[in-house]
Amino acid sequence: MAGFGIDEIASSGAPRPLREVVRPTTLIDAPRLGRQLGVRLTLASETFQHTGSFKFRAAYNVAAQVREREIITASSGNFGQAMAYACGLLGKACTVVMPHTSAQVKVDAVREYGGRVELTDVRVKSREERVQELAREHPQAYVASAFDDPLVIEGNASLGAELAACGLSFDAVIAPVGGGGLSSGIITGLRAAGKDTPVYAAEPLLANDAARSLRAGRIVRNESEPQTIADGARTLSLGQCTWAVLREGLAGVVEVPEEKIAEAVRLLFSLANLKAEPTGALSLGALLADPERFQGKQVCCVISGGNVDPAVYRRILTADYE
Amino acid sequence: MAGFGIDEIASSGAPRPLREVVRPTTLIDAPRLGRQLGVRLTLASETFQHTGSFKFRAAYNVAAQVREREIITASSGNFGQAMAYACGLLGKACTVVMPHTSAQVKVDAVREYGGRVELTDVRVKSREERVQELAREHPQAYVASAFDDPLVIEGNASLGAELAACGLSFDAVIAPVGGGGLSSGIITGLRAAGKDTPVYAAEPLLANDAARSLRAGRIVRNESEPQTIADGARTLSLGQCTWAVLREGLAGVVEVPEEKIAEAVRLLFSLANLKAEPTGALSLGALLADPERFQGKQVCCVISGGNVDPAVYRRILTADYE
Repeated sequence: MAGFGIDEIASSGAPRPLREVVRPTTLIDAPRLGRQLGVRLTLASETFQHTGSFKFRAAYNVAAQVREREIITASSGNFGQAMAYACGLLGKACTVVMPHTSAQVKVDAVREYGGRVELTDVRVKSREERVQELAREHPQAYVASAFDDPLVIEGNASLGAELAACGLSFDAVIAPVGGGGLSSGIITGLRAAGKDTPVYAAEPLLANDAARSLRAGRIVRNESEPQTIADGARTLSLGQCTWAVLREGLAGVVEVPEEKIAEAVRLLFSLANLKAEPTGALSLGALLADPERFQGKQVCCVISGGNVDPAVYRRILTADYE
Repeated sequence: MAGFGIDEIASSGAPRPLREVVRPTTLIDAPRLGRQLGVRLTLASETFQHTGSFKFRAAYNVAAQVREREIITASSGNFGQAMAYACGLLGKACTVVMPHTSAQVKVDAVREYGGRVELTDVRVKSREERVQELAREHPQAYVASAFDDPLVIEGNASLGAELAACGLSFDAVIAPVGGGGLSSGIITGLRAAGKDTPVYAAEPLLANDAARSLRAGRIVRNESEPQTIADGARTLSLGQCTWAVLREGLAGVVEVPEEKIAEAVRLLFSLANLKAEPTGALSLGALLADPERFQGKQVCCVISGGNVDPAVYRRILTADYE
């Protein structure tokens, strides 16, 4: 029942610890879906987390731990919303730099959560340049990375701790990977709880820098932002902090073709009643892309978020029926 | 964590009690949605219940309590799936009479859950006639009603008990009404736990026999099956057992126009990441249809199920964008 009455948090003194504020992940036993995929399947859904994705775990931890009262971040997606909301709870100010082409619903969501939106024309100036500019103008502010920060990994480790304590013994946990904040957090949380459960990363084949990094033994970057449907994984590379965990900690990376990501969204809809965003469905897509690897196992797929534009979702549902 | 390892139940001796088998309802705090509607809103979602709707509560209770080893029921929807699955868990046989025009996915689902499907050409013989025919052929079988049975109300009372024990104090609980099994169960469960929380029924305006019954002080029937988008509420009338609870127990009935049902499905998608079937969204539709009644209150909307055809869902999402 965490999360009820959270509106009152901001009025208290010291920040409440993450474990009291975060909503526990929603564990869903999915026998029909599992049968179809040949595994015993549990979904760990972060779609009902505050602001609709796991990003709240990291955002709150960062905002609560740093001493700065102002936070600047660049995000057109879930991290911006999560940081705006977390800062609101903590009585801190939050500026989110977004491309001027961002969907209005995403801009509105950040504002509704209490964040200040700084739209930037990315043809003139990249978001990172605009963030650096703002950082110079506001030296008292903390510039938050969506993934490459030990506080991000620590925040996401709370999900690993929950999986360790949930009473189920998984042969594999699969989580989407973009910058690596989620997968490194889950590994950290599981290991801190004494669990050696293998953790696999599910990555869009179109954005397979993590898979290539693991093969090369060093961080390999995408040349440009990959245009995968899994927009939460459109990162250029892993971060230094996340790579330090992932290089030894990951059991493997499964590269998921775009059509398997879409099929995973549809299967979650049809056989588990779960609305997932494409990035959130990546872990299930990994079961479709590499079924032999997980055959007959007890698998936990982390569904990282559910925020998807209705028009995009409708198109994904349509593909199966036209 | 109820629901894990449920596959093993059938092999044991005496039936396990419902409270051990049922999945607890998924309580979702929905502050964005609540703000938009002017209430403090909790969703009690049965979309992740076994077979995707609250119907499992009643079906399991019926199948576990009756001594017959065979069950016959007429249902083209959630009750048929729930009964097939419940009988499978209990090692009983289940026959579901469905119209020959039923969607193949629904027929497949009943079969996948272990039920025998009896397709009947409803132009020649009504489903009820076919059920009576089967009952004569199989006198050893129990003919199960989807709503008008004390065992149905008792099964659904488990949801009322959960709401009573969840630690939140609601000013109103709203649940969809068709035959009345869910709303009468919730009332029964809440009252048994000593809670006098007002319970409202949300009914399609197109199928407003419960509202008319309450006004008339006696059961009023729809002339024919109402063609509401909320197909779980396409019932001809309340039952004798449910009416006995509802006539005194309901705080009121809210009649929800079709467009508000569709809008509720879209709002659950956009602001709560929840996939609901139209019948499941009725309770939220009630907030849209009669906002003054619930303004500023702490409201629990029961989302009764999530099983909706992708094509139907896509059309509902589309209405807002074209």
